[in-house]
Amino acid sequence: MPEASFFTDMLQSITDHGRQLLFSGSRNTQAAAKADLQTLCEMLLSSRGEASGMALAAEILDRWEALDSEGAQTFLQMLHEKFGPDASKLDQAIERYRTDKSSAAVIALHQAAEPRRQELLRRLNHAPNGTATLVRMRQQLLASKDRSEAYDALDADFTHLFGSWFNRGFLTLRPIDWSTPANILEKIIKYEAVHEIASWEELRRRLAPADRRCFAFFHPRLADEPLVFVEVALTRSVPKAIADVLDEGREQINADEATTAVFYSISNCQDGLRGISFGNFLIKQVVEDLRRDLPGLKNFVTLSPVPGFARWLAKVRAAADGLVLSEAALKTLALLDDPNWAGKENGAAEVELVLLPLAARYFLTERTPEGRPVDPVARFHLGNGARLERLNFLGDRSPKAIQQAHGLMVNYLYKLDDIVANHEALAQRGEVIASPAVKNLLSQSDDGRRGGHGQQGSRAFVQLMNSTLGGGRK
Amino acid sequence: MPEASFFTDMLQSITDHGRQLLFSGSRNTQAAAKADLQTLCEMLLSSRGEASGMALAAEILDRWEALDSEGAQTFLQMLHEKFGPDASKLDQAIERYRTDKSSAAVIALHQAAEPRRQELLRRLNHAPNGTATLVRMRQQLLASKDRSEAYDALDADFTHLFGSWFNRGFLTLRPIDWSTPANILEKIIKYEAVHEIASWEELRRRLAPADRRCFAFFHPRLADEPLVFVEVALTRSVPKAIADVLDEGREQINADEATTAVFYSISNCQDGLRGISFGNFLIKQVVEDLRRDLPGLKNFVTLSPVPGFARWLAKVRAAADGLVLSEAALKTLALLDDPNWAGKENGAAEVELVLLPLAARYFLTERTPEGRPVDPVARFHLGNGARLERLNFLGDRSPKAIQQAHGLMVNYLYKLDDIVANHEALAQRGEVIASPAVKNLLSQSDDGRRGGHGQQGSRAFVQLMNSTLGGGRK
Amino acid sequence: MPEASFFTDMLQSITDHGRQLLFSGSRNTQAAAKADLQTLCEMLLSSRGEASGMALAAEILDRWEALDSEGAQTFLQMLHEKFGPDASKLDQAIERYRTDKSSAAVIALHQAAEPRRQELLRRLNHAPNGTATLVRMRQQLLASKDRSEAYDALDADFTHLFGSWFNRGFLTLRPIDWSTPANILEKIIKYEAVHEIASWEELRRRLAPADRRCFAFFHPRLADEPLVFVEVALTRSVPKAIADVLDEGREQINADEATTAVFYSISNCQDGLRGISFGNFLIKQVVEDLRRDLPGLKNFVTLSPVPGFARWLAKVRAAADGLVLSEAALKTLALLDDPNWAGKENGAAEVELVLLPLAARYFLTERTPEGRPVDPVARFHLGNGARLERLNFLGDRSPKAIQQAHGLMVNYLYKLDDIVANHEALAQRGEVIASPAVKNLLSQSDDGRRGGHGQQGSRAFVQLMNSTLGGGRK
Amino acid sequence: MPEASFFTDMLQSITDHGRQLLFSGSRNTQAAAKADLQTLCEMLLSSRGEASGMALAAEILDRWEALDSEGAQTFLQMLHEKFGPDASKLDQAIERYRTDKSSAAVIALHQAAEPRRQELLRRLNHAPNGTATLVRMRQQLLASKDRSEAYDALDADFTHLFGSWFNRGFLTLRPIDWSTPANILEKIIKYEAVHEIASWEELRRRLAPADRRCFAFFHPRLADEPLVFVEVALTRSVPKAIADVLDEGREQINADEATTAVFYSISNCQDGLRGISFGNFLIKQVVEDLRRDLPGLKNFVTLSPVPGFARWLAKVRAAADGLVLSEAALKTLALLDDPNWAGKENGAAEVELVLLPLAARYFLTERTPEGRPVDPVARFHLGNGARLERLNFLGDRSPKAIQQAHGLMVNYLYKLDDIVANHEALAQRGEVIASPAVKNLLSQSDDGRRGGHGQQGSRAFVQLMNSTLGGGRK
Repeated sequence: MPEASFFTDMLQSITDHGRQLLFSGSRNTQAAAKADLQTLCEMLLSSRGEASGMALAAEILDRWEALDSEGAQTFLQMLHEKFGPDASKLDQAIERYRTDKSSAAVIALHQAAEPRRQELLRRLNHAPNGTATLVRMRQQLLASKDRSEAYDALDADFTHLFGSWFNRGFLTLRPIDWSTPANILEKIIKYEAVHEIASWEELRRRLAPADRRCFAFFHPRLADEPLVFVEVALTRSVPKAIADVLDEGREQINADEATTAVFYSISNCQDGLRGISFGNFLIKQVVEDLRRDLPGLKNFVTLSPVPGFARWLAKVRAAADGLVLSEAALKTLALLDDPNWAGKENGAAEVELVLLPLAARYFLTERTPEGRPVDPVARFHLGNGARLERLNFLGDRSPKAIQQAHGLMVNYLYKLDDIVANHEALAQRGEVIASPAVKNLLSQSDDGRRGGHGQQGSRAFVQLMNSTLGGGRK
Repeated sequence: MPEASFFTDMLQSITDHGRQLLFSGSRNTQAAAKADLQTLCEMLLSSRGEASGMALAAEILDRWEALDSEGAQTFLQMLHEKFGPDASKLDQAIERYRTDKSSAAVIALHQAAEPRRQELLRRLNHAPNGTATLVRMRQQLLASKDRSEAYDALDADFTHLFGSWFNRGFLTLRPIDWSTPANILEKIIKYEAVHEIASWEELRRRLAPADRRCFAFFHPRLADEPLVFVEVALTRSVPKAIADVLDEGREQINADEATTAVFYSISNCQDGLRGISFGNFLIKQVVEDLRRDLPGLKNFVTLSPVPGFARWLAKVRAAADGLVLSEAALKTLALLDDPNWAGKENGAAEVELVLLPLAARYFLTERTPEGRPVDPVARFHLGNGARLERLNFLGDRSPKAIQQAHGLMVNYLYKLDDIVANHEALAQRGEVIASPAVKNLLSQSDDGRRGGHGQQGSRAFVQLMNSTLGGGRK
Repeated sequence: MPEASFFTDMLQSITDHGRQLLFSGSRNTQAAAKADLQTLCEMLLSSRGEASGMALAAEILDRWEALDSEGAQTFLQMLHEKFGPDASKLDQAIERYRTDKSSAAVIALHQAAEPRRQELLRRLNHAPNGTATLVRMRQQLLASKDRSEAYDALDADFTHLFGSWFNRGFLTLRPIDWSTPANILEKIIKYEAVHEIASWEELRRRLAPADRRCFAFFHPRLADEPLVFVEVALTRSVPKAIADVLDEGREQINADEATTAVFYSISNCQDGLRGISFGNFLIKQVVEDLRRDLPGLKNFVTLSPVPGFARWLAKVRAAADGLVLSEAALKTLALLDDPNWAGKENGAAEVELVLLPLAARYFLTERTPEGRPVDPVARFHLGNGARLERLNFLGDRSPKAIQQAHGLMVNYLYKLDDIVANHEALAQRGEVIASPAVKNLLSQSDDGRRGGHGQQGSRAFVQLMNSTLGGGRK
Repeated sequence: MPEASFFTDMLQSITDHGRQLLFSGSRNTQAAAKADLQTLCEMLLSSRGEASGMALAAEILDRWEALDSEGAQTFLQMLHEKFGPDASKLDQAIERYRTDKSSAAVIALHQAAEPRRQELLRRLNHAPNGTATLVRMRQQLLASKDRSEAYDALDADFTHLFGSWFNRGFLTLRPIDWSTPANILEKIIKYEAVHEIASWEELRRRLAPADRRCFAFFHPRLADEPLVFVEVALTRSVPKAIADVLDEGREQINADEATTAVFYSISNCQDGLRGISFGNFLIKQVVEDLRRDLPGLKNFVTLSPVPGFARWLAKVRAAADGLVLSEAALKTLALLDDPNWAGKENGAAEVELVLLPLAARYFLTERTPEGRPVDPVARFHLGNGARLERLNFLGDRSPKAIQQAHGLMVNYLYKLDDIVANHEALAQRGEVIASPAVKNLLSQSDDGRRGGHGQQGSRAFVQLMNSTLGGGRK
């Protein structure tokens, strides 16, 4: 990090110098001072000097920072309209290629088809803090993306460049603990997206005890800014509820007594890097790291939320999703409409019998139009090669979890020997790998589907509207 | 660096695991074990799993390392022939674009025109030490480049990717001194390209004294491997000869007594990164760094070799370069054919009077077909915005310098306030900025050109064969 | 710090091993297991093996940690009674010395006079965390010191050894800022003794802004434990009130705009190191450090509390301190008995006129029986060579400051060129160096003393009971 | 290390300032400028200011550095004569103690008996680089020690203070490898005392291979100066000869293939710290460290020289040491007088049969007047708790080893479970613990002693002159 900041200082100094030159003295530079952003971008694309290029880049990004919301939209629009490929050069390159299939002609075609803004973004990246500013620029772009299809093309350019700049080879994994600098820790508090950290005292409870770990990925040009981090609990069994992990009064153990590492929270930190995936890599590195340090660890599991479950279940209950539930099941599920249902023992027990088989179905057979699991967290872990290990009824009684998932949490199991096979089962055959216990729950709901109509008591509650489940819903 | 090696360990571990999976058990992986390199490359391009992808990448690079010279040529040939763009997809994309000028169509065209090997190289880069191996692969490619034009296209892909991976924002500047780890210092010895370092004792003399500095650029994925480094002497005047700088018995001064920083050796370390320029940036950063640490420094100059001078002069003497020298001049220059000419005082003085004006011409008016200075070191510094400050007759009496440049060395001056203007003068008007003293030397030779025929004594020695100097030689 | 913890691990490992040997197997070691603390201490003094010595030391310190309050007193008593010098050896050494004045005889006498517990403490210090435990042991000793004069001798031994172990040459100065590890920052919160830090947010306000600094001394064997730290505000003028420094809404400035560094809080962290002085050294190092980094800094001042002032003034008002105040002055000072006096504008202005001259007297002429300034903070800064620069009426309106000092704060000025002279003026002539403004206040009170009886209005309020002020109170 | 040098800079700056004050301006300080060293020392002892004290200390040490050899002797003499205890104070303290046995009286006596130079040395230690300079001062003292008994008292003071300053708790263990800074590595080359390192290339061979390790102790006030270091070879068997370890062409193995760690060279670096023992601690830490990193390691042995053997054997052969050798034995040993004996196969085999049993006697039964093993290296390792494991005939054929030990080397075995017992056997019963094989060799020589006179062939060669071996030689 000292190096990073040293480097930033250097860039700043060179840039300031260049800027001074740029905006003082000669006619050219007076022109620059008056120029609008589009002109400056054109100047940057045609500049050849080092210092003047960096100065222009810094000037453009500074002006961008100062734009109001409308100005920012105009800027994005300009990037889209004015900095695509040069149409006439592209036409020429196409013409040449039609008669000349040489490598040189292909290269020329490839270059002519490249939007000019790719080079523009590359040059903006040379400004001090350029990378960080461009990440914020994309964050804004993503927020506006649904306003205009035009932004899809723009985002494709950002994605292409970020994929290269944030190549996994450039990321460094660092442990985060109670001896980590406070300026980084405050970002852990800020970015925690799964189980909120309410205070420094709570942060301390997650980092300082001997049976807690945390790891984050960093990038050399975003020093002191974690990209993604994972919080880990070391335990003697696979926990069923987040309260067991986070409870202040829980029994602490020594790290070498632990048999199980529980990944109970994974948070992406930079909105502007959405879709540039690091998380899967993070988990695998952390598994490797923990295995080496703590040979006693045998199980690597998550304790994960199910953010899409309640929404899906609402659709099912409204018969809007191709499943028909039995009357009995619907009646039981109606208990969920009481905001305090989870606290009522009898009701909760009843709900569990209906909810878990439906949850098994949610994970194992439901699919997005693209054929992927419908739950976003499931997509992440299953796509990573994990196995769906256990459904935990009322694993999280916080209002957020009750609202999103009726309190459901699940464990995904990372077994290094099976990761590749699991991943390929999903990628190639669309099959979700799950434990026998979870599959068994599905067969309970299958019973219902087949036998139907509730006459078999609480186990039989699901009716299939049409038999070609999935097939009809592509 | 610990982080870097930690990271490499991690990659290695994950890769080993993936590899074990890849080459044991399932049918697929048995196929991989038997597959040839082309098949493996195709598998890598179509792979979707993290570990299996890294394993494939590592397998391919390991096999590549084991190839003999012929096998390596075949591999490059294969990359060229089999991993260009998919012709039919490209044709389709062109067809679409002709009727549909939408962004989506342009993106599709751009992607279709991208050689498939770009993605292949990106994926190979994920292997542990992938970047370092690909740098070696390009080194081999460059060595073979003149064998086949096919390699130009291949090199364009490497250059494009390296430009992104070795983005200046990722480089870190580190001082190299006598407290630098020995494993890095031994590379400084190895890579020094200008004034050889014969032993650790000599290295110590260049690094340890208070009036010596050295800086290098490093890249996070090539830890412990400098990319380029510069050696600096802190002095009280601008040196005329390299012996003044390197002499063992020279008087040492305190750093804060120095007024002048002399960049007397700049060496690129990685052949495989040729053309990916860092050096100009290095010098500017070092200037900034030194200015901050040592406010007493007023002058930033080089003491540089002139590697192309003797070759050029030989052509001139053979009247093969459009200049006609006077008889007197030719006779004087004939003294150079005695290998010991530099030691003979009278002769040397005579030579100096003829040689320096010719050298001024070499720098100031001679141009490559592209209109750039003919001397490669001059191209670098002048392109950087430096000014040609002084010609030093017999500045280096080593056999190498006598042979390459008849002992000539020059000082380039880096004056931060003029860098942009100097750079633009060259880039836009083709004008080499030089000190009055150097320009004055040129007018001496100009005198000769105009007056001709030696009747004006030793100052008049150059005759122009045709008056459209430069114009006729494009 | 990694090294420190690595080292502690090592010690722990060797010690554990030694301990296992010590308490298993042979008859000796069974004896140890049953032995009481005194026996173990005797065993430690006579042990010669490395591992067994460390094991014994660790065993003793562990048992000491487990003692209850009474046990701890008994332990200290035992150290005092049983581990003084060996009386018979000392007598012999004295006898020898009376006839033999050789160096050898002196050495023998010196050694015989050394309490055996000095060697015992040295050996206890070899245990892992031995130093930290002994610092806690002395903390307990100091807390008990008034119970028994016996402890004075014991404390002399601790002081002698700590003086050597905490030699300033072993201390390292480290900046504390918002990128400091949280485990150290939480100790800054805990140990701040002057202006309480109520939360991490408040800590951030003291460390993160560009115009704030903090520095601490650390010792290699108390890693992560600051010994003393100082908080610094960078300002454009010398502040009169702590609210100006700590106010959340204050205007922040850039560090290089500052002309003045204000040391507004100095806290010792380790009770067990009381009397082992580092603070004076800390301030001088920090002054040097800041001067180098920020050449714009011209003034180095404190904004300091006056913890002994209210107690002294109470004695004066009770006529118990040799001064007789005028009726008018006493009446004005009676306003202080209203707890809300500071908020009442008229009253406060009246009080100021009486209070400040008395404060000047408190600093300039009052002395302890040993002839030193009566205020402990004044003793520290004046002894350090600072000058008393300004008295700030109601500089701190917090309840604590109102109660201890009627809200008075003062600025001490550190002027590097005068430090030695100031220090020597105090040390050799007992003279407190103060600014003319402060001295002038004193002459106001002197007027009162001479003219007497209040007839000169508000300036005349002090009457001297006897004219040999100070002389009679030794 | 950055901290250390930062700290040194600070000290330097404060000192320079103090010095400027000291030697400019006031009368006092002009006195100092002219004062001789003794006066300066008295001034330092009576000084109370921080800066002036450091300035005086620095001035004294600087002048000391500039002394010639005679001046240095005078300085030591002065320390001895003028800075012992104050005789009159000591007499008073003795008088008081005779009637007053209170703690206070004892403390006063102890203080009065302390040589004044102890406090003087403590204050000199405050100078920048004070510790390093005092270490050099003691180095000089040791070199002069035999000139005068006076120096014994002086050395006792140095030893006492160094023992405290170089407390093991302050030492840090650092691995030395090929990535260690060159300025430290050059000291490894310089200080290697057992098997010379002739070049950087040879150093590289000792540090860079995967089966080599090196560790050193450092002290915070002697940054970049190793105190002691040990070189380790990782092997698959216990080596018999140093050539097996150092041979350039030896087979390298992976660290995790090794079963045996061989400590083949231990060098103390600072002559001035002679007698302040760290080496034993170093070995035990390194054993712990290696065990943790490389669980495959089972044996920890040395391959050690026997520096006193040849000298001892010469005395035996001259019948000057209480042993009478048989004629046959003497005749065989006469072969050693041929400088090339080791190269002659027959001769060497004959010598071996006589030499090894004598070597066993040298280690197992010979003792110094104090009852310790006669070999200095044996004293170190055996005192450490190692066991004498094997005698290696012609283990080192270098001229130095042939001359000192007739080529003999030995292995000492460090077995953690036995270290305490071995140590105590030697410390308390004077018993050297050795392997059965070594003891067996002794019984061969014992045979000779009993049976005498050579008639039993080559095994019988030693004759005892008197039967109370050892008893007569105190």
